[in-house]
Amino acid sequence: MLHKKTKLAAVLIFLIAGTGSLFAQSLEETVALHGQAIDMIWLILSAALVFFMQAGFAMVETGLTRAKNSANVLMKNLMDFSVGSIAFWAIGWALMYGADALGLIGTDAFFLHYNAEGLAAYGAGSMSDIYRDWMFQVVFAGTASTIVSGAMAERTRFASYLIYSVFITALIYPVSGHWVWGGGWLSSLGFHDFAGSTVVHSVGGWAALAGAIVLGARKGKYIRTPEGIKVKAIPGHNLPIAALGVFILWFGWYGFNAGSTLSGSDLSIGHIAVTTTLAAGAGSVGAMIFSWILYKKPDPSMSLNGALAGLVGITAGTWVIGPGSSIVVGFIAGILVILSVEFIDKVLHVDDPVGAISVHGVCGAWGTLAVGLFANGVNDSSIVGLFFGGGLRQLGVQALGIISAFAWSFGTALILFLIIRYTVGLRVSEEEELKGLDISEHSIESYSGFQIFSNM
Amino acid sequence: MLHKKTKLAAVLIFLIAGTGSLFAQSLEETVALHGQAIDMIWLILSAALVFFMQAGFAMVETGLTRAKNSANVLMKNLMDFSVGSIAFWAIGWALMYGADALGLIGTDAFFLHYNAEGLAAYGAGSMSDIYRDWMFQVVFAGTASTIVSGAMAERTRFASYLIYSVFITALIYPVSGHWVWGGGWLSSLGFHDFAGSTVVHSVGGWAALAGAIVLGARKGKYIRTPEGIKVKAIPGHNLPIAALGVFILWFGWYGFNAGSTLSGSDLSIGHIAVTTTLAAGAGSVGAMIFSWILYKKPDPSMSLNGALAGLVGITAGTWVIGPGSSIVVGFIAGILVILSVEFIDKVLHVDDPVGAISVHGVCGAWGTLAVGLFANGVNDSSIVGLFFGGGLRQLGVQALGIISAFAWSFGTALILFLIIRYTVGLRVSEEEELKGLDISEHSIESYSGFQIFSNM
Amino acid sequence: MLHKKTKLAAVLIFLIAGTGSLFAQSLEETVALHGQAIDMIWLILSAALVFFMQAGFAMVETGLTRAKNSANVLMKNLMDFSVGSIAFWAIGWALMYGADALGLIGTDAFFLHYNAEGLAAYGAGSMSDIYRDWMFQVVFAGTASTIVSGAMAERTRFASYLIYSVFITALIYPVSGHWVWGGGWLSSLGFHDFAGSTVVHSVGGWAALAGAIVLGARKGKYIRTPEGIKVKAIPGHNLPIAALGVFILWFGWYGFNAGSTLSGSDLSIGHIAVTTTLAAGAGSVGAMIFSWILYKKPDPSMSLNGALAGLVGITAGTWVIGPGSSIVVGFIAGILVILSVEFIDKVLHVDDPVGAISVHGVCGAWGTLAVGLFANGVNDSSIVGLFFGGGLRQLGVQALGIISAFAWSFGTALILFLIIRYTVGLRVSEEEELKGLDISEHSIESYSGFQIFSNM
Repeated sequence: MLHKKTKLAAVLIFLIAGTGSLFAQSLEETVALHGQAIDMIWLILSAALVFFMQAGFAMVETGLTRAKNSANVLMKNLMDFSVGSIAFWAIGWALMYGADALGLIGTDAFFLHYNAEGLAAYGAGSMSDIYRDWMFQVVFAGTASTIVSGAMAERTRFASYLIYSVFITALIYPVSGHWVWGGGWLSSLGFHDFAGSTVVHSVGGWAALAGAIVLGARKGKYIRTPEGIKVKAIPGHNLPIAALGVFILWFGWYGFNAGSTLSGSDLSIGHIAVTTTLAAGAGSVGAMIFSWILYKKPDPSMSLNGALAGLVGITAGTWVIGPGSSIVVGFIAGILVILSVEFIDKVLHVDDPVGAISVHGVCGAWGTLAVGLFANGVNDSSIVGLFFGGGLRQLGVQALGIISAFAWSFGTALILFLIIRYTVGLRVSEEEELKGLDISEHSIESYSGFQIFSNM
Repeated sequence: MLHKKTKLAAVLIFLIAGTGSLFAQSLEETVALHGQAIDMIWLILSAALVFFMQAGFAMVETGLTRAKNSANVLMKNLMDFSVGSIAFWAIGWALMYGADALGLIGTDAFFLHYNAEGLAAYGAGSMSDIYRDWMFQVVFAGTASTIVSGAMAERTRFASYLIYSVFITALIYPVSGHWVWGGGWLSSLGFHDFAGSTVVHSVGGWAALAGAIVLGARKGKYIRTPEGIKVKAIPGHNLPIAALGVFILWFGWYGFNAGSTLSGSDLSIGHIAVTTTLAAGAGSVGAMIFSWILYKKPDPSMSLNGALAGLVGITAGTWVIGPGSSIVVGFIAGILVILSVEFIDKVLHVDDPVGAISVHGVCGAWGTLAVGLFANGVNDSSIVGLFFGGGLRQLGVQALGIISAFAWSFGTALILFLIIRYTVGLRVSEEEELKGLDISEHSIESYSGFQIFSNM
Repeated sequence: MLHKKTKLAAVLIFLIAGTGSLFAQSLEETVALHGQAIDMIWLILSAALVFFMQAGFAMVETGLTRAKNSANVLMKNLMDFSVGSIAFWAIGWALMYGADALGLIGTDAFFLHYNAEGLAAYGAGSMSDIYRDWMFQVVFAGTASTIVSGAMAERTRFASYLIYSVFITALIYPVSGHWVWGGGWLSSLGFHDFAGSTVVHSVGGWAALAGAIVLGARKGKYIRTPEGIKVKAIPGHNLPIAALGVFILWFGWYGFNAGSTLSGSDLSIGHIAVTTTLAAGAGSVGAMIFSWILYKKPDPSMSLNGALAGLVGITAGTWVIGPGSSIVVGFIAGILVILSVEFIDKVLHVDDPVGAISVHGVCGAWGTLAVGLFANGVNDSSIVGLFFGGGLRQLGVQALGIISAFAWSFGTALILFLIIRYTVGLRVSEEEELKGLDISEHSIESYSGFQIFSNM
């Protein structure tokens, strides 16, 4: 803020200009600058909102797990973005938005290095466009990688966590991201994922699934008995912060979805905010009602996950689906997340402490498919779903995208986690897990002074 | 984000334009678009801030009540917005902003259905204006309905809560809202409530009063003794999250008040932010000092409520009252909220666990009246209060608005709650209340693993 | 929102305009208004983000101290901004941005009183510019004053805290602020502190150092033994809210740094967001690695402070340092904060419960110096550091600024705290400290119902 005075003088010049005298620049240049400024402040403020979702994930994952692992969960959430932002600066961005090779991968702009041709090829007028877009993209990469931490909570070695965080933000996320948003093969086929139901959430969710499988369940979660496997519920320790986390995520989602117009002059921003709101509301209502029927009581943590399910579900179609349909999409996502949580836990016996695989993987897939069903052509006449006379074409492309993202993310993550498991090791020892990762991994108590039951 | 590249190309066109060549559209069209874009991003970002106030209410209400009811309080806060957003989409918006009938109620645009005439009548150029305005309005409706949950915390049946949430967002709030903001009779009389001291806060507060009366006090709150009724204080269980909630509310209030310009090109935004800040500060200072005198110690929860009282108090006049006066308005609100809390509790024996009736109802009325006293004509020369030479006219109109809003909100809410009470029932059983609503209504513990005294 | 309809009509006029007919104002006036509007919404939204940092500080300081002092810590955080905002309105702003006298201090605009000449002298077109700038500045003043509360937590008398809060926001912060941002002597020398590593953070940190020295350590923190002084660690009571606080601060920092362009049309906003993000990430990574080496475990609270250290460290140079260098600056800050915490605690035996002196004072100084080392002339060719061929000149000026700020802030604060200590008294009694300040100062329990070990 060194040049405060001169900055203000500049404002004054504008005032003078308003009264008829000359602008500092030509009127056309001034108008062009305003257009860039509107995009800049819109994307940076949206990026800040999406960054804040990191706090939301941290609170949700901490609140829904046990007190003895809180510090570890928080550390992982802090670190995946910290390490991830540097990795995405060095490599991830290049693979996602660098010059396309065969529609498969980006090939330049490592460490954000651009020359004049590079800028022109990207479609940027100057580095300020690159910085603006990188800032908006890095927070999406951070979201994808932090999703994984939830499903692997309470038993993963911290050091191993750091390793795969780097791989997810530097390699796994950017490559499939390139296919859809970087001008890759899926986008050429007309696959539509406006803000990332597949690109961000499913990719994170499927990597989480691979991680949870390779890692194995928490001790005491599934107990073998003569009558078969007994499934034990392990309640979270702090519902208020989990609820706060969901509200923070919902709040940040306005930046996540509406910011994805990539332009502040795109008047469809209002439409996006409306469908995002209604789908989230319908998601929590759907989950509340369904949990009420299923468990005889309206379940708070399921309702909270229902709101997230609705948000993940509408993320792909928020721009092409109408308000009424967005309620249907969200409501179904709210029911689907419960069915999926039950199936993964009770049938597959895969231990996902916070339901990340169901919320992000499954509902991300649902939302992506929903584009092929509910798109009404309102903001893009070329994207029309089955229920609005678009036939099966879009639905088919959406399905192809879902399958491709699953194959890539689950496959590469599975290999990554298996390599880590059989080299440095993926899981803490049984004693460490029992004692809690806060003490064993970080020599700290999260709630010093509070009387907490030993097994929690 | 499918069309990232093309979107960026568009940006490039602007750059070219800046260098003298042609715009994608005419210069005038581009400038007009910028005007709309500035309004759009301003209102959507403000709406996001106001949405985030839901998290603030959730934390304040949870923190100031007992641990055994936390999940229930959180559930109610999540659900009133989730259910409410759908109700406001289907019905509420229509009654508030639909074509006016006799200045009493809106009559069209249910489910946001508009035809060309409807858009023109509303003054919208396209649906994007409708979506933008609905998004900004739905978060206000959500605020009004969530206020009620605080006063009825710790003893209300969850199912009954859902029923009246729908009625408040679909009927009670929109009708009185139409009178003031929808072009109804109160606005024609010159009643001024810039951002909703009455329209949002008092309406919520008076409904909360009706609810608290019909519901009755929490067990053990008022004990009959030979010497008369003994009033027991029931302390909240988590002050840090309550304080966080207040900071979140204050943060969101910048969207609530400044966003109410409804235009990003309105340069009075700065004035609004200043009066909002000073009134909030003065409110907490006033409450701190007065609590210090009254209780011999500066009381934290009263000081927190004082900040909210100052914010509620300045909401009506934030645009027409000067910075100096805003300090007076806020300071008085901070004292008033304590007097009101004491009166409602010790004299009326109405049990309001978080002081919602005093903060929103009473201070909302005060703030509305304050317009008739402190308005200085700065941003609207037609609105001048008694202390600035405006005589009694504005004061009279403000008083009329306060009384009308009370009559409508308290009256309809009273009928609603009485119907619920004598049909499905409004209150949980004594055993359920004793056990706590988390267990009895949701079969969940909010702080699993923590040692908590049974009666809390 | 009284004039909703007419406001919308205005929008409509713009639409008409877009189609070729006349604007409500001339095209040039409209474009000039857009320029002002873009600055207004950018600065007010950025100010809101910086205000929200108050919540971040409150959560960090509460979480890292003991449960028995939570309400007191929260009260102080609420009050320093509440009291401070009024003090900065009455006096602080005038001393910082009033008409300059000898480059040392501002001399007019008390209570924001301006006449036409005053507005012109400031460079404002109308009061709306003043309100916009005051709003952005008051949240910076609040940040400086709240920093102090952390270092003085758990033993300061509440009444005394209020007194020095007023002095810091009304006198100490504004005067040194005037030297740099108010057109004072340091700015004339070319000292560069873009968003306040020195102006805000160091000034707050050095005042905190003076306070911690005059106040003395918490009981039981340093125990004299025959072998010398034994240093006892006093763990915080709630790591999840401390982590939440850090995420909130990081989130708010995008307003703090990027908002400091003071113009929404400044396209360097993107560059600022990128360097802010990378430095924060590198800071937490640096602290994690260094704590791992030092303590054999990656330390969560040090890593959290590392993120803050990186943010404080990049605040001065965020606009003039490149992304790569910002990683270096942040990484070093992350290591430096640990070395500083250890030195202040183990060697100086100054008791700073949350590490505020190290994070804000020391890393603020480092960040200010870093401008003289890493500035690459990208956004301002006149600011080039040693490593980019700028020689020692900038480095020297930066060092001079660091020393001047230390002398002023530490000196005046020391006098202030000594006066308070020997008059009204600065510290609570030993019994009060043992019992906890929540009970002794506010007669409240922060976690009513929770079983908490007596000494916490």
